[in-house]
Amino acid sequence: MRVFLVGAGPGDPGLITARGLELVRCCDVLVHDRLVSRELVTEAPPGALRIDRDRLGQHEIEQLLVRYARLGLRVVRLKGGDPFVFGRGGEEAVALSAAGVPFEVVPGVSSFAAVPAAAGIPVTHRGISSQVTIVSGHDADALDLAAVARAPGTLVVFMGLGSLREIADGLIRHGRAADTPAAVIASGTLPEQRTVVAPLGELADAAAGLEPPALVVVGEVVALAGTLALHEFAGALAA
Amino acid sequence: MRVFLVGAGPGDPGLITARGLELVRCCDVLVHDRLVSRELVTEAPPGALRIDRDRLGQHEIEQLLVRYARLGLRVVRLKGGDPFVFGRGGEEAVALSAAGVPFEVVPGVSSFAAVPAAAGIPVTHRGISSQVTIVSGHDADALDLAAVARAPGTLVVFMGLGSLREIADGLIRHGRAADTPAAVIASGTLPEQRTVVAPLGELADAAAGLEPPALVVVGEVVALAGTLALHEFAGALAA
Repeated sequence: MRVFLVGAGPGDPGLITARGLELVRCCDVLVHDRLVSRELVTEAPPGALRIDRDRLGQHEIEQLLVRYARLGLRVVRLKGGDPFVFGRGGEEAVALSAAGVPFEVVPGVSSFAAVPAAAGIPVTHRGISSQVTIVSGHDADALDLAAVARAPGTLVVFMGLGSLREIADGLIRHGRAADTPAAVIASGTLPEQRTVVAPLGELADAAAGLEPPALVVVGEVVALAGTLALHEFAGALAA
Repeated sequence: MRVFLVGAGPGDPGLITARGLELVRCCDVLVHDRLVSRELVTEAPPGALRIDRDRLGQHEIEQLLVRYARLGLRVVRLKGGDPFVFGRGGEEAVALSAAGVPFEVVPGVSSFAAVPAAAGIPVTHRGISSQVTIVSGHDADALDLAAVARAPGTLVVFMGLGSLREIADGLIRHGRAADTPAAVIASGTLPEQRTVVAPLGELADAAAGLEPPALVVVGEVVALAGTLALHEFAGALAA
């Protein structure tokens, strides 16, 4: 018995790791996030049990992983992005460890750099940015916006669309220039990707039409978005 | 003609993306970093030209990519980790763009979360850390250690082994507690991985025997390293 906590990557199914794909292709049970692409869910063997975790609470997921593993089944827990970057993979790992269930973490391509890359934005760039700060906008009240505003380099906000105005205003109030280049990228790396580039002070208005999942990027590197080409959606997986 | 800037991932060849592996397997020219695993270099077709970029300057690499692409060849530039996370991929992208050579960026699993994961450390964890700061220790004098020390959450330092004492001392001088849990992970995700866990104030002494490549992690999440299991090196790639 074993549980594999696998990162599915940022959206494009071609961005799962070779190891992760191999594990999906030979699992007995696939417990997947809603945002994981249909192509990857289809890669599980025809007889595999597929479980969309969407209607399950975190504790229920953990119990499910333990239960199926104890039946001697190969369980793959397929999570968007990387399991340990705002993925709650750590909680699942702790639960499995406490239950004595062996597990393995297979990292994934995190959205933090891949989604900006798909919009032509390198999160680091020689002479422009050599520091990246990653935060979650899920609970914007818990953010130390004063510290974040002072951090040099690039800022990446996960799940920041819902509180975008609050975050942008807070950063400006704490000293970030209102004309700092910024972007919101929705559905990054997917065919339906939409990118909005605007100065920080105008970002919330400019991004009004976008829907989650979305990533916010703030910093001088965003100015490179015009120069660099885009990620091309791969979609199909080689056999 | 086309150049693919492909991230090879953190070390374990199984952590390249499915798309990246597919591109390596059908390239005409493979220009690879020294740290990219031999297994991946071997995956290029038997007739492909393999070029170790180790003895080439950055400008020479860029010229090489342009030259081979203009001959109508499929060129894969295979870089450790992710091309846009301290990978100088942005510079190569700018050079290709300026030369009018079409290119595509295929992101990779960055070491920033995958290497800590391989040591049982989740860079974010509910209730412990919801912010990650990523810096390079390559030019430690350029680091704003005061700002970095004040940032809440987890700190990840790339290429920080050479200036580890200077960085640790600086963080403590600027307010980080000397007993903050910290780790250095050398050759992360590879069979020869070595991990040293120690309080920040003792980290430089504890890590004295380690050799690059190494990643430094500072923050309360490091305390989870004892609980969580390790990454298992995959090594072989499925056909």
